[in-house]
Amino acid sequence: MASGKIRIGIVGWGNLGRGVKQALVHNRDMQLVGVFTRRDPEQIRAARTPVFAMDDLPRFRKKIDVLLLCGGSATDLPEQGPKMAAQFSSVCSYDTHAKIPAYFKKVDAAARKGRNLAVISTGWDPGLFSLARLLGQSVLPNGRDYTFWGHGVSQGHSDAIRRVPGVADAVQYTVPIPEAVDAVRAGKNPELSTREKHRRVCYVVPKGDADRAAIERAIVEMPNYFADYDTEVNFVTQDELKRDHAGLPHGGFVLRSASTAGGPTHVLEFRLQLGSNPEFTASTMVAYARAVYRMRKEGRTGAMTVFDVPFGMLSPLPPEKLRKQLL
Amino acid sequence: MASGKIRIGIVGWGNLGRGVKQALVHNRDMQLVGVFTRRDPEQIRAARTPVFAMDDLPRFRKKIDVLLLCGGSATDLPEQGPKMAAQFSSVCSYDTHAKIPAYFKKVDAAARKGRNLAVISTGWDPGLFSLARLLGQSVLPNGRDYTFWGHGVSQGHSDAIRRVPGVADAVQYTVPIPEAVDAVRAGKNPELSTREKHRRVCYVVPKGDADRAAIERAIVEMPNYFADYDTEVNFVTQDELKRDHAGLPHGGFVLRSASTAGGPTHVLEFRLQLGSNPEFTASTMVAYARAVYRMRKEGRTGAMTVFDVPFGMLSPLPPEKLRKQLL
Repeated sequence: MASGKIRIGIVGWGNLGRGVKQALVHNRDMQLVGVFTRRDPEQIRAARTPVFAMDDLPRFRKKIDVLLLCGGSATDLPEQGPKMAAQFSSVCSYDTHAKIPAYFKKVDAAARKGRNLAVISTGWDPGLFSLARLLGQSVLPNGRDYTFWGHGVSQGHSDAIRRVPGVADAVQYTVPIPEAVDAVRAGKNPELSTREKHRRVCYVVPKGDADRAAIERAIVEMPNYFADYDTEVNFVTQDELKRDHAGLPHGGFVLRSASTAGGPTHVLEFRLQLGSNPEFTASTMVAYARAVYRMRKEGRTGAMTVFDVPFGMLSPLPPEKLRKQLL
Repeated sequence: MASGKIRIGIVGWGNLGRGVKQALVHNRDMQLVGVFTRRDPEQIRAARTPVFAMDDLPRFRKKIDVLLLCGGSATDLPEQGPKMAAQFSSVCSYDTHAKIPAYFKKVDAAARKGRNLAVISTGWDPGLFSLARLLGQSVLPNGRDYTFWGHGVSQGHSDAIRRVPGVADAVQYTVPIPEAVDAVRAGKNPELSTREKHRRVCYVVPKGDADRAAIERAIVEMPNYFADYDTEVNFVTQDELKRDHAGLPHGGFVLRSASTAGGPTHVLEFRLQLGSNPEFTASTMVAYARAVYRMRKEGRTGAMTVFDVPFGMLSPLPPEKLRKQLL
């Protein structure tokens, strides 16, 4: 296009897709070409946003520079990631940590074949938190890592509560335990059990005359999700849940506590307090889309992660300005 | 060498050079070839460290992979940086922020000519703090930056006090003001004057019967260094200074407070608490030496900064392990 802007496509119109659209407002070197959805495009209300059916995507191959994949990691991305990488350069926020190596392999093969570049697993964890862990370990090899999550809403844990019989709706907050964070910050290198690192606070809307004691028991004893934590269950009305717990805050801390050979202890800390988890994740994806556009222009293809992208590629400013203003 | 290790040379044997030697203990993929000094090598006590005269350097061109320049930014590096870049790939921690663009240019020209790779201005500020600023601005374009330094010893301010008539010795701590840091963390986007961000705490050894009131006045009224701050002056004996203030702790906070278009506020924070400023700076240089070695092998030459180096290059682990273990 004549504008010279980076042309962006959004695949999937949930919280993350909407977050990308909002993030583009503050990234003037990019322009939104369209949103692609499996739903009926006519049914999607998106002011001044062109919405297309997913099947229309192939005809945009020459009209989109980077596709932002905004589907979920459970079922959408395992299929879409490799498929889209064959046709477009792309960014995703695939976050199933254990399956990243297999996903990387598939996306890498597809992207190489299509001569595209795909940066996978951006966002904050995996993503910026992973970068903080890597930096800490590389600069301070003789130390220990700690990651704390929250204060924030865990979708997985909220969903687990919603599956408990008698529960109409629920929101679960993961809360880091301040004494544990402070002990790490103080360089004490504590051994911390699961229970000592986080607690879980639940807001639950019971159905009609459901047995509240039974619901509470089912939650606090649920293996993997709650049994290893101190869990607080609060019963609220649907109106209260909507009024007080509709936001999606999240964040956390990555800490590296380490010593150098001379003896002294160093603590490196990266902390995020996110007003909206999907809006922040979307903002991260947009910055990495800029990097994908540039690195593809340099001839790079295949799959990459945040570990492979120099920070200079994320900024709209040219290198000489970055050196002058930010170094 | 048969070992396949990255062969390191250290130029300059002050706190930083000693820190590099110590850091190499925890980086088993590297080996120290030698320390190069302008002093008489015979006079330098460095157990199990081969020490050579600076003039011997040229005969090590094929024996050293990366040279770590551990001189000062005032007079050593402006001369050594370009000179060494012509002969060796190198890493430095040049930290005169305002002169970085000019320094970069000279090192870049020399490194290109010599077909070497030089990463300049590593360390923590410039260095890791610069990376945090760049990341914050790139991911959250609609926001505000804050940098706080300390609690830590400022060499420049300590030196300034030592030049005051009647002062035998001195140490100055830069101390961030907790209320200011907390206001930023709370997303309040405060306007902060110089005085509201940091205070200065000085430990001063007066000469014999020097006029303490005059010394204190000369310090607190000193333009640029102290006049714009609340400054506390404590008089101590030389023994007390040596006993309680011999360490070189430092650190600080880089914060980005920003909103996304949907409205919510996000706060990104990178914090360092360094038990020893030179040992941490040295550790950072060593990690970047690994990157220099690898990127030179990929054919890269010229000058770079931390903005141009992907974090994956800093780690001894291969990319597939990083993806599996740290992403």
